[in-house]
Amino acid sequence: MTYRLYYWPTIQGRGEFVRLALEAAGAAYTDMARGKGEGEGVKAMMALMGDKALARPPFAPPFLVDGEVTIAQVANILFYLGPKLGLTPDAEADRLFAHQLQLTVTDVVLEAHDTHHPIDNGAYYEDQKPEAAKRAKAFRTDRIPKYLGYFERVLAANPAGDAWLVGAAMTYPDLSAFQLVEGLRYAFPKAMAAHEHSWPKLLALHDRVAAHKNIAAYLGSERRIAFNEDGIFRRYPELDGG
Amino acid sequence: MTYRLYYWPTIQGRGEFVRLALEAAGAAYTDMARGKGEGEGVKAMMALMGDKALARPPFAPPFLVDGEVTIAQVANILFYLGPKLGLTPDAEADRLFAHQLQLTVTDVVLEAHDTHHPIDNGAYYEDQKPEAAKRAKAFRTDRIPKYLGYFERVLAANPAGDAWLVGAAMTYPDLSAFQLVEGLRYAFPKAMAAHEHSWPKLLALHDRVAAHKNIAAYLGSERRIAFNEDGIFRRYPELDGG
Repeated sequence: MTYRLYYWPTIQGRGEFVRLALEAAGAAYTDMARGKGEGEGVKAMMALMGDKALARPPFAPPFLVDGEVTIAQVANILFYLGPKLGLTPDAEADRLFAHQLQLTVTDVVLEAHDTHHPIDNGAYYEDQKPEAAKRAKAFRTDRIPKYLGYFERVLAANPAGDAWLVGAAMTYPDLSAFQLVEGLRYAFPKAMAAHEHSWPKLLALHDRVAAHKNIAAYLGSERRIAFNEDGIFRRYPELDGG
Repeated sequence: MTYRLYYWPTIQGRGEFVRLALEAAGAAYTDMARGKGEGEGVKAMMALMGDKALARPPFAPPFLVDGEVTIAQVANILFYLGPKLGLTPDAEADRLFAHQLQLTVTDVVLEAHDTHHPIDNGAYYEDQKPEAAKRAKAFRTDRIPKYLGYFERVLAANPAGDAWLVGAAMTYPDLSAFQLVEGLRYAFPKAMAAHEHSWPKLLALHDRVAAHKNIAAYLGSERRIAFNEDGIFRRYPELDGG
């Protein structure tokens, strides 16, 4: 069965956390809004999302269609896919903890987004630049250290060793932690260069994920969309401190 | 087994979504930070949360302790508690959809919070009032209708009828939808009074939850903390439009 992933075709965005899991597992999937075939493209995605006949409608992309199942919200998609892709820990308590970490990634990703959209999600960055500068400062100073310090702590506390966030093998929150570091380095290169040495285990985890055979192949492929200023993580030098 | 809920003792906040589930089910629980006994109070909560020996540390309150399990993130706690409390649908696809709805509640709750803290979570509202006024306007105008309209759509699309969000019985996202309406009515009374007629099924759901025997008893008890200006939903008239 080929998974159908629906997400905006020109950005990594939230969809990237799902793409990384599918890619790491070598799963067969179609990135539906990027295609030109029947039922593909953004228009088809919007039509599907707005279909009043859907019993379980998504609020927003990304969403995944797997046969009869339509499922939305990144963390929920990963919770669903994890066992199928071999990217979830075995023990129930570990599965819940993996999900808990993913929900914490969700939180920091939204905060990263709001550094450039602190006032109005529906308006342009250019219309909220002074507020963005203030919010980005608080994000760089307080929130990045709090979140990345937390993931560092989780690695240090893992009874199975500090290679992975949960248990002794790579699971989906590891992939998301990789993407979080990537995104923050893209958006806030100066702030990260100045402070990332505080989170050595997290950086090592990042490098471990980047070196994973399937991930390395994906990152070098055309399927990996480059970071850009339409996505969640945007490089605006004025938001990266003086 | 008595559940131990850890959350700030003077606000409804995010903890309230968990309290409502425990109360609806008539579950035995201790609201740990509100007590004065051994291991209770805010100091004990902070000590527990900061304990470096914790293999699965929470990022922030609320968190729940159930025997050997410590679990954080509201949606994750409810996903865990739902089956134990009889507040989760039976079918796997419905369980995932219930969780998906809960994650959408998580999103709108954070946006409601950010109407009074659009710039810096660690600073006072008084230090970000002009930005809060702008963000609140966008929230009232665009985001409340988008989110509440979505829940209205979900009710209309439910194949089992429009009484509940998922299936034919009350589940935990129904309780959270109730709380969302309560909170928005508290924080934005004028905006809600002007627009809530657009979401009649959601309002009926709200009233159905409020009339639930255990919930009605809870709402009339001292266990229900009153809304106040330290919580997520705050009544600042200047944020409710002119």
